[in-house]
Amino acid sequence: MPKVVRFHTTGEASVLQLDELPVPLAADDDVVIDVRAFGLNRAEIMFRRGAYPQYAPALPSTLGYEAAGVVRAIGPKVTTLKVGDRVSSVPSFKMGYYWTYGEVARVPEHAVVPLPAHLSWAEGAAIWMPYLTVWGAFVEYGRLQAGETVVIRAASSSVGVAAMQMAKQLGATVIALTRGDAKRDFIASHGPDHIVTTQGGDLAAQILDLTGGRGADFIFDPVAGPELMELAAATRYQGRLFIYGRLSGEPSSFPVALGLAKGLTLRGYSLFEVVNFPAIFARGKAAVAAGVAAGVYRPAVDRVFSLGQVAAAHEHMESNVQQGKIVVAV
Amino acid sequence: MPKVVRFHTTGEASVLQLDELPVPLAADDDVVIDVRAFGLNRAEIMFRRGAYPQYAPALPSTLGYEAAGVVRAIGPKVTTLKVGDRVSSVPSFKMGYYWTYGEVARVPEHAVVPLPAHLSWAEGAAIWMPYLTVWGAFVEYGRLQAGETVVIRAASSSVGVAAMQMAKQLGATVIALTRGDAKRDFIASHGPDHIVTTQGGDLAAQILDLTGGRGADFIFDPVAGPELMELAAATRYQGRLFIYGRLSGEPSSFPVALGLAKGLTLRGYSLFEVVNFPAIFARGKAAVAAGVAAGVYRPAVDRVFSLGQVAAAHEHMESNVQQGKIVVAV
Repeated sequence: MPKVVRFHTTGEASVLQLDELPVPLAADDDVVIDVRAFGLNRAEIMFRRGAYPQYAPALPSTLGYEAAGVVRAIGPKVTTLKVGDRVSSVPSFKMGYYWTYGEVARVPEHAVVPLPAHLSWAEGAAIWMPYLTVWGAFVEYGRLQAGETVVIRAASSSVGVAAMQMAKQLGATVIALTRGDAKRDFIASHGPDHIVTTQGGDLAAQILDLTGGRGADFIFDPVAGPELMELAAATRYQGRLFIYGRLSGEPSSFPVALGLAKGLTLRGYSLFEVVNFPAIFARGKAAVAAGVAAGVYRPAVDRVFSLGQVAAAHEHMESNVQQGKIVVAV
Repeated sequence: MPKVVRFHTTGEASVLQLDELPVPLAADDDVVIDVRAFGLNRAEIMFRRGAYPQYAPALPSTLGYEAAGVVRAIGPKVTTLKVGDRVSSVPSFKMGYYWTYGEVARVPEHAVVPLPAHLSWAEGAAIWMPYLTVWGAFVEYGRLQAGETVVIRAASSSVGVAAMQMAKQLGATVIALTRGDAKRDFIASHGPDHIVTTQGGDLAAQILDLTGGRGADFIFDPVAGPELMELAAATRYQGRLFIYGRLSGEPSSFPVALGLAKGLTLRGYSLFEVVNFPAIFARGKAAVAAGVAAGVYRPAVDRVFSLGQVAAAHEHMESNVQQGKIVVAV
């Protein structure tokens, strides 16, 4: 029987285990995939810890949003795929009922897209969460314009890399933020206009200096926390801050006086705002597929772990040393 | 010489005094108005205290944004007005250099609009800050839609009254918030669908109950502070919160987890976002003038003070017992 990653209790990475389970039946619009690689996301770590903002896992629980592999079976209502297709999964389903961590994955038909021939399995597991997340923030909701300046925090993450590539494609100026100098070369290889370290002194002053005192048009931040005040101070009149994560863990103040004086928009955002709306989801899928096919979107893969190392892969993500997407090859 | 209200030092209401000054020259596009009434705004209290978010007063300083009266003199560049016109002023200028508190006011031509014949002088001094502020939030920036539910905090204020009237005009459902029961009858007379008191128990639960568990589409709040968390909890998925003041004085937390899970937009907003942009300002002036002319926008006047009572009028505003606009008749 194929091995599937599950956890029977929430907690640290060590709760992840390989359970041998029957190949799932492909009912309705289910698609069963022989997984060649799956990608890791912060969402799965929160889910594993029981701290996922959307809902709690039903134990024992499977997990995972992203995979690349070959279609093994399709449900009777599936019309757009056939057995043997090379595909990726797009995070757009209820994790736990569906999953991607394992030798086989079960996902719904709407979440399955063809894998371009020029991508490796690992790259195929590293596209959809990052690029679709950024597309929703920069194109659908945030309307990032050519000539605007965007500050991309945690620029070395898989979403950060996607954001740098997509912002440059849209004609924006990119200020990449990273904590120290360790990831500077990696970030520079993805083409930002400027790199600013949060350890390099007054964050607001650095950004204001780079924007001629005007401030950035757009902040894209998965961290939040106390630095939100500094980022707000570095945002232009009527600028917008998209917060798509809370890695900080510390409380985040809304800078009311500054927000009033500058007409700032502070917006919480997640990929669900793309995938929960069919028309938006369809536009996003088409845009990302086009960017990948054109070679403009090039996912960055960090380390590749084996299936037996899945707990180590999670610990690697939690150590915050990775650059790009962490992948498990199956 | 005419009396003009000035303060020579920042502080409590007692710093306001009547200074006899020469009638100002009408240079360039200046308009000098013989004031019949002027309206009070929170902005002037903050300005008087030296706590205005935009800038500090140059002492001694005049003050005031709103007045109604008769044009006494026009500068050589003024083309749209003549001496003797009955007019109101629209807050859209640098308070301190321009002013409305006094027997004469000086304002720039773009800030002067005709006063409809059916309005009293007091009503004419009570239109523009409230209705233009609400128009910018509900129409230009916030896009309040028919069928949406809007929560209007501090509903008994002049802006609150304008917001209730404009929201109903736009076809929205109105939930009016007020602290206790003291102002319930006044608020009810302006047609909200529901009145909720913040002293009446769990604020979020009350609003969720009134919206069938869905949450409000739009929050319009001049208070901010700790209740922002409750209001965010009472906002629907992808809802928006416009914060246009900070009467609370306490810090305001941005509810990051909730903001992410619900895709909330929290926006600082002020009337400057209307009047600083000529095309938007022109649209807003036309929309408010039409609503006033049609009798749909009916400003609520609280107490009318005499010029000698201007300090008492400020203290009355700071006591938070008023209902509608506080006016000084000259």
